[in-house]
Amino acid sequence: MKIYEYASAPNCRRVRMFLAEKGLEVEYVPVDIAKGENLSAEFRTKDVNAKVPVLELEDGQCIAESVAIQRYFEELHPEPALFGRDAKEKAVVEMWTRRADFNMMFNVGMCFQHTSGVFKDRMNVFADFGEDAGRKALKFFDVLDQHLSDHEYLAGDYFSAADIGMLCSMDFGKVVNLRPDAEKHPNLVRWREQLKARPSAKA
Amino acid sequence: MKIYEYASAPNCRRVRMFLAEKGLEVEYVPVDIAKGENLSAEFRTKDVNAKVPVLELEDGQCIAESVAIQRYFEELHPEPALFGRDAKEKAVVEMWTRRADFNMMFNVGMCFQHTSGVFKDRMNVFADFGEDAGRKALKFFDVLDQHLSDHEYLAGDYFSAADIGMLCSMDFGKVVNLRPDAEKHPNLVRWREQLKARPSAKA
Repeated sequence: MKIYEYASAPNCRRVRMFLAEKGLEVEYVPVDIAKGENLSAEFRTKDVNAKVPVLELEDGQCIAESVAIQRYFEELHPEPALFGRDAKEKAVVEMWTRRADFNMMFNVGMCFQHTSGVFKDRMNVFADFGEDAGRKALKFFDVLDQHLSDHEYLAGDYFSAADIGMLCSMDFGKVVNLRPDAEKHPNLVRWREQLKARPSAKA
Repeated sequence: MKIYEYASAPNCRRVRMFLAEKGLEVEYVPVDIAKGENLSAEFRTKDVNAKVPVLELEDGQCIAESVAIQRYFEELHPEPALFGRDAKEKAVVEMWTRRADFNMMFNVGMCFQHTSGVFKDRMNVFADFGEDAGRKALKFFDVLDQHLSDHEYLAGDYFSAADIGMLCSMDFGKVVNLRPDAEKHPNLVRWREQLKARPSAKA
């Protein structure tokens, strides 16, 4: 079993942090997406989207998508439960996991892809759209700050995969200078510092 | 318990189809998003994104996001299993559910929002970006057709929530004239017809 990944990609960190919380170690195989190693015909057989991370199982089955990889390990190693323990918790963790994807990762990622020019050789770039996405990410910082004013973690009083997803997505914002402001977002910064104190945050 | 929804929204259909497969009935409360009823301060307390569907539980807890609502009912009513039965199946269903979101719903939705002008009073519109997203959705039809040439359903030989997500997202493409082509995508059309024959497809 091995995981293809690129160390600085936020969705790869999302898997590493999750595995560290579970106390699991898996072999990592670096794929240099800056050099386009993920775009080879061979790698596309592992993921139709040619993205990282990808978990390759012993039988050759490949699991792409960070959250799909997380769920694989959650099922085999249920403790500590990171996707919730009952129906309501599981639903709330899924809700916040999707907000980490749609409100944060998507906006930060679009801002990066459409304003940095890093992947301009492999995609159509729409700078105005990218800037608009960046403003949406900033606006979502306000929503998060409000929510975290009376919730210790995103899903309530317990740490979950949703916190991992949101932290890794938000931290990636620094590449386009999107950072929460200590004065404007005290609760968000408190939550971030709390998560950064976990050993898994350095995974 | 009730579900706030807008009948023609693809993510609302996604929940209705899922509940029909489980044989469950829940009270629906219509929210007219065309008239902006979802944008009220009161509705925003139910979902920070002011979107439908939202499941409101008896204790007042609100669960937004179609897949979060699906997971709530999967946990309480595990049969038939629609998110997979073991670790590998669960991971594969999650992977294809995310592809339904990121490769299909996202591209179809962006094409709709940025080219139709329907929501131009409540968002910044980037038509070129929307057209590019539409082309990406069409390109993903090719990927799906290839995958379905040797898989009965997205996750393999069993029907799952990933099929529901992909069907509802793909069907929504008709609002921007994105449809699979019977000659170019015979496997995709076969899969779609197979799903449409299920009573739940009309929910």
